[in-house]
Order: sequence, then C-alpha cells, then structure tokens
Amino acid sequence: MSDTRPIGVFDSGIGGLTVVRALTIRLPHENIAYFGDTARVPYGSKSPQVVRDYAAQDTDVLLKHDVKMIVIACNTVSAVALDVVQKRARVPVVGVIIPGAETAVRASKKKRVGVIGTASTIASNAYANAIRQLDSAVQTFSRACPLFVPLVEEGWTEHAATGIIAKEYLFPLMQEKIDTLVLGCTHYPLLKNVINSVFHNSVMLVDSGEATAAAVARVLEEHKLRNKSTLKPNIQCWVSDVPQKFTEVGERFFGQKLGRVQRAAGFTA
Amino acid sequence: MSDTRPIGVFDSGIGGLTVVRALTIRLPHENIAYFGDTARVPYGSKSPQVVRDYAAQDTDVLLKHDVKMIVIACNTVSAVALDVVQKRARVPVVGVIIPGAETAVRASKKKRVGVIGTASTIASNAYANAIRQLDSAVQTFSRACPLFVPLVEEGWTEHAATGIIAKEYLFPLMQEKIDTLVLGCTHYPLLKNVINSVFHNSVMLVDSGEATAAAVARVLEEHKLRNKSTLKPNIQCWVSDVPQKFTEVGERFFGQKLGRVQRAAGFTA
Repeated sequence: MSDTRPIGVFDSGIGGLTVVRALTIRLPHENIAYFGDTARVPYGSKSPQVVRDYAAQDTDVLLKHDVKMIVIACNTVSAVALDVVQKRARVPVVGVIIPGAETAVRASKKKRVGVIGTASTIASNAYANAIRQLDSAVQTFSRACPLFVPLVEEGWTEHAATGIIAKEYLFPLMQEKIDTLVLGCTHYPLLKNVINSVFHNSVMLVDSGEATAAAVARVLEEHKLRNKSTLKPNIQCWVSDVPQKFTEVGERFFGQKLGRVQRAAGFTA
Repeated sequence: MSDTRPIGVFDSGIGGLTVVRALTIRLPHENIAYFGDTARVPYGSKSPQVVRDYAAQDTDVLLKHDVKMIVIACNTVSAVALDVVQKRARVPVVGVIIPGAETAVRASKKKRVGVIGTASTIASNAYANAIRQLDSAVQTFSRACPLFVPLVEEGWTEHAATGIIAKEYLFPLMQEKIDTLVLGCTHYPLLKNVINSVFHNSVMLVDSGEATAAAVARVLEEHKLRNKSTLKPNIQCWVSDVPQKFTEVGERFFGQKLGRVQRAAGFTA
C-alpha cells in the first residue's frame, strides 16, 4: 500500500519552508502541499485568540487539497492553537513544539535549556511546559527575539547589526549557562552562524524543523501513510497574498528552487 | 453651525496614533474615531492588491461610526489605495502623501529631497510622483527601511543597533546631499533623534503627520465641518485584534494616555 496524497504543511508565511526543507531531506519522495498566510503574516506579535482563528482557516485550506496529515510549521500556531488544528482535521497533526522539546531534553547534558521565539510563542510557555512534562529536572530559560524575523527577511543574516542584537537578546541565556538552545521560530535556522558565534559554538542549537521531520516520518509509518513511490515529488505552494515575493524570497528558506506558487482563494477580494 | 461628528482615522495598526497626536494638537476639540487593523498589521510588506482590499474594509469600519471625514494615517495605504478610499467614502478623504510632499517641496532649498518608508510605499513611488507634480525641478531619492518599524515596536529608538542600521539605510541619501527628508511612515517620527544624528542635524525632517493635520484643518474649514465645541474631545479607538497590546504600546505613539479601546467586529471569529 502506498499513499500518494500530499503532506499538508502550513505557516504564517514563508518561514515554514525551512520545515519543508527538512521534510524533503528526510522524506524525499513525499508530495507536499504548503500554505503560507502571507496576507496576514506575522502571527508572532498577534494575540492567541486571533492566531487560533487564523489556524482554523489555514487548516481548511489544506484539507481542501486532500492532505494525509498536517504539519504545523509555525511555532506560534503550534504553541497556542495545536488543539484547534487537531479538532478540525480528520488526519494526524504534528506541531513543531513537542519534537523540538524532545530533541532539547535528549541533547542537554547540564539540563539547562534556552528557548528563543516570537513574543507569542515565548508568552505561551509552550516549550517550557513541554520540556517540563518530558523531564521535570530540566530548567528552561526563555527569551522573545522580535527583531530576528525582520532581520532574516531583510537578508541580514550576517550583518554587524544582527550580531549586536543577537548578543543583547542572548546575553541573559548565556548567563544562565545553558548548553542547549531551541530555535523556536522557523526563521531562526537562518541565523545559526550568528547565534553560534555569540555562544562561541558552546551551545547545541535545536532546529525544531529537523526534529519535526523525524516525528512526521514516525507518524507516516505508524498510520501506514507512506508514499512508496520513488518518483520526484510534487511540492505545491499556496499563499494568501500574491505569489511574487514568496517565490522570490522562498528559495533562501527552502534551499532550492520553488515549484509552482498559487494564490489561495477566499482570503481577500 | 458645529459638526460634532468624529474625524475618522485609520492605519494598519498603531503607527497612525502619531497622526492622531498631531491632529489633537492642531484641532484640540475635534472628536476622533480611530481604527487600527492590528490583526493584519503590517501593510508595508504586503502587495498593493491586498492593501487595497484591506483599505476598503477599514473604510467601512469608520463609515459605520458616522465620521465626517477620513484621514488615511498610513503611508502605505495613502500610497497605493487613496482612490479606493475616496471612491468608497461619501465624506472628504485626506491621505498623508500629498501633505507630506507639499511640506517637503516648500522646505527644500537645494531641491534635493529624500524619502524613506516601507517597501510598499517606496515601490509605489507615490511621494516621488507627488513631489514631481508640485515642482518638477525637485529631485527625489528614495530608500525603503523595513527594519525601522520593528525597531520602534521593540522600543529601541535610541539603541546602538538602531544607529548602525539607520546609518546603513541613510548613507545613500547622505551621498546625494539631500537637505530635506520625508519620514514616509508613521512609526518614523519616533526615530527623529537617531535620524538627526546620522545627518548631524543638517537635514530638515518632514513629519507627514504634522503636515496632514494642517491639511485636515483646511478641509474642515472648506467643508464647514468644524466642531465649534470647546469641550474635551472624545477619542475612541477600535482594533481588529484584542485591545491589550494596542493600549499598552499606544501611549508611546500618542504621547498621552489612550481612552477606551474596543475590538472591531467582523475581522475574526
């Protein structure tokens, strides 16, 4: 048995493509249907109420494309609206928080884990709660880094200003002597070099996208949803704003050329 | 005759409060109804198509509150959707671009004007076009500054990183020896100190909000819409996300305590 239906992936915008990148490395023959809510991005500065409302609509976009499971490739949605998506979808749902938390707990020798993310993700305490449930001996230290997303979107991943800002954001976590840091936002893997240099490469960075790809592989096995084909997969993207900017910038996040990007119906006139 | 109906003001979020601040200084007895689309902010990185769609909906929110005129306190909307608002509203409409352009043309002795704004505002060329129409001898030099809004929202208006970023953004305009700079985004007046220090106070900064308040006063006179009352005015705000963050951060933009902030209906479930 082979299930050729696509894996559905959604995010507030373009950042979730780093999760798609991890998925295509781990599961190179799975078809993927991606939705990015580029007309309303970002979610990380908005209230949980609004994010839950948007998450429900995003889920509906993917369900229309007959997806066999849903990956919430957005830390903010995974943090505040996992239950909304699970309740709405009739297929398995994987968020990025629990896989990221599991990887961090396994990685931390000193049981001191830092978590960085958007204001909403950090305010939700979702990573800290997930980590405590896995191992109550692990201490977490969290910090919202609201400027990281705009810096990445500006392409300033190696800029001097980014270094100064990273130092300021991460200094309190350095003082806490963490040995593991969860990159709790899909944009942050693009800042790995800057973050590593602040910590002098002494901290293990946990990319939730990679952890999530492994969790997705497990779910596909368990539910017998694997696509056994060895053909090149079909990776299709939908966005709520016009596709142009997403197509232009998306490559940096996806790591290769994007295929067809279309505008999703029903978001704007 | 006295018209006590409120002046309607809208923006993509919180930045338009700098325009409200200028209005309350110029017209201290006018009632104001403000709408900030905080559930979909920002507009400056979105396509003109989406911004035009949102502008129509924002206009409808204000019209429901029986406003006597509409002020588009958002440079991006003024740049790409002035006609949408004018067509929809049955009351006079003032955007921030033309008043800002007029002030810049009057101020520039060397006829060399810089314009900074969001990606969408700069891509629209709205300021450059308006300035050319007023005086074809004036040369304009434009630069998008996408990090300025998130820096202001982070409260880093005097931060070292902001200085470095401002220098990088503004360097090309310095090289062009401008003598006047249009702050083409409602967040930018909060960066006046940083910008002045980059230019060693040698450039006249044009705050479109102040120019717009003067234009609004003229329109009220012309259309006999002035409120002749000398009572303390009623300044009411509506937002599309929950009011909490707007209320907390709004004071920095408005310069004084905000009154009642309510959630507008019809934007989310």
